[in-house]
Amino acid sequence: MESKNLSPSTFIGVKGNEIISFGSGQPDLPPPKQVYEILPTYRDFKYGLIQGQLNLRQSLAEQYPQSTVDSFVITNGASEALDLTLRALANKEGKNKILLPRPYYYSYPFMVKFSGMEPVYTNLIEGRIDFDDFQEKVQGCKAVIINSPSNPTGRVESIKTLKQIEKITDDLGVYILSDEVYKDLIYERENYLIKGSHVVTINSFSKTFAMCGFRVGYLWSLDQELVNKIIEIKTHTSMNTNILGQEMAFEATKVPRDFIDNQIKIWKQRRDMIYEGLVNLGLDLWKPEGAFYVFPEIKDPRNFVWNMFKQHKVITYLGEWFGADNRVRFSYALDTEKIEEGLKRVEKYLKD
Amino acid sequence: MESKNLSPSTFIGVKGNEIISFGSGQPDLPPPKQVYEILPTYRDFKYGLIQGQLNLRQSLAEQYPQSTVDSFVITNGASEALDLTLRALANKEGKNKILLPRPYYYSYPFMVKFSGMEPVYTNLIEGRIDFDDFQEKVQGCKAVIINSPSNPTGRVESIKTLKQIEKITDDLGVYILSDEVYKDLIYERENYLIKGSHVVTINSFSKTFAMCGFRVGYLWSLDQELVNKIIEIKTHTSMNTNILGQEMAFEATKVPRDFIDNQIKIWKQRRDMIYEGLVNLGLDLWKPEGAFYVFPEIKDPRNFVWNMFKQHKVITYLGEWFGADNRVRFSYALDTEKIEEGLKRVEKYLKD
Repeated sequence: MESKNLSPSTFIGVKGNEIISFGSGQPDLPPPKQVYEILPTYRDFKYGLIQGQLNLRQSLAEQYPQSTVDSFVITNGASEALDLTLRALANKEGKNKILLPRPYYYSYPFMVKFSGMEPVYTNLIEGRIDFDDFQEKVQGCKAVIINSPSNPTGRVESIKTLKQIEKITDDLGVYILSDEVYKDLIYERENYLIKGSHVVTINSFSKTFAMCGFRVGYLWSLDQELVNKIIEIKTHTSMNTNILGQEMAFEATKVPRDFIDNQIKIWKQRRDMIYEGLVNLGLDLWKPEGAFYVFPEIKDPRNFVWNMFKQHKVITYLGEWFGADNRVRFSYALDTEKIEEGLKRVEKYLKD
Repeated sequence: MESKNLSPSTFIGVKGNEIISFGSGQPDLPPPKQVYEILPTYRDFKYGLIQGQLNLRQSLAEQYPQSTVDSFVITNGASEALDLTLRALANKEGKNKILLPRPYYYSYPFMVKFSGMEPVYTNLIEGRIDFDDFQEKVQGCKAVIINSPSNPTGRVESIKTLKQIEKITDDLGVYILSDEVYKDLIYERENYLIKGSHVVTINSFSKTFAMCGFRVGYLWSLDQELVNKIIEIKTHTSMNTNILGQEMAFEATKVPRDFIDNQIKIWKQRRDMIYEGLVNLGLDLWKPEGAFYVFPEIKDPRNFVWNMFKQHKVITYLGEWFGADNRVRFSYALDTEKIEEGLKRVEKYLKD
């Protein structure tokens, strides 16, 4: 059966006017014009600092507490930031396990294994961390990856839980890798920045500023020894991040907060439409509090994803890629007309 | 003693009119204007294919024999191409050792270790591979890294040696990682492309087209299983290479051969000047046949590098970073006036 071979790459490059894609997790909106206004006169093609351009790190240091330009490394997207951090941790003495709340972003288990370490899991309850289970599992780990707001659940952890996690990991000497790439896309409250000398925060310009293809991310940590190890690895494995991308990211740091507030209004409208639409179709799902994903339970998800694509030209992602066999992920990074049309097709499929 | 802490990063970001830098290995000449003429109207910010943009891979497929677009992966510079290949090889069953001709490009041993494998060495004789020793050492290895033209030696291996290496590694089932980033900077003959289903060729737009900071490299291999493994690793660890960089690289593939021929004339003039200059100062060095480095023997290299920098404002790189304790590397990627001035300062130092 063809559908056995489903993977995210099944859908890569699939285009067509009639296709509705709830697949890929990237904003459909354009970046703020400030980021590309520098293009016409740009003329610097030489190697940059491995750690990242100084102007960009200076601008970031103003956003993060207790920071200097030394606290940051600019990377090829959040992906490389996480990968480098895991590789640096794998180099350190000690435990070999990394705790992942499940469902998880689908690259996490791969990255952990590629770094030579072992993923272990704590299952979310209603899309949120179960602190009792977390507390037990974290004991045997070198680090934990926290991703709030979460891809694929759309959930935001409570500040209480995040503070409990901050404390217990600090007490145990366990690192937190806090993947906060959706920090500017929260509908309910401001982001809570997880802090401590045992924290590595991962972020990106891809989602907030809609420049995914430029691959500019960064990490922030007050553990200078770890940061230095990360720079050492990057020196030999990829050198500086694309310098024009960094210059565009620097421009993005100067974009007024209005831009983000306006984006959130748009995302919230879409969120409401898809959430209510799927609830009305009788599906069981969590209301997204951040990011741009819904993650409903679906009967026979493989048939759903395959047939929605083949018969109805709607792309969705299998929950099993994210560690949830009974769910399907919908990204709602598309305009409301398309969301509406997509919902109609889902309705048609479910009725048949 | 301060000079004990010398490393390439000692010199990063060091600028000043009076400084002559024989340090960093990047072209001082600008890229061909075709690569940046596309900037003003560029407007694509979305994720690209992990393997690389189709137009660029199509263009490369026309340059390499027996190839299709599937034979290439576009990477964050040659560095990431090598790193991904080593990580993919580390994932394969079998031996754990990687053979490196010494002196070597200074990142090779680090990359091999970061991938969890072990570097072993075959010493060059007069800057060239000693095939007898190579033949013996390669038996216990999973792969060998060949770098011809070589950084730091400036040497080009004979076609006879390259063919011997092609054959013995094929017979033994050992991979060749052929780092050919200087393939267009050979003074003596055309580049010889190492071939075979056991070969991964690493290349880059950095040196030929003077766009180091954009970090666009690639790998080519006819081992489709290995290429697919590399794409899988890149999917999770960095995703697509900066898409604007790839578009610029595509423009570079259309630049007429004249551009390269003119560059070689300039490099050859510089090569002759620095080679003859250092010979006239009584230094023992190999005549560069490719790339843009000379690698003379120097008495007490640490004092030389330190004092040339502190007293004479001339940057050079310690041979020990490249596995040669008794040498110093000079990059001659600077104009002839500066080379002349630099030589005068070296003369002054050596006389004192």
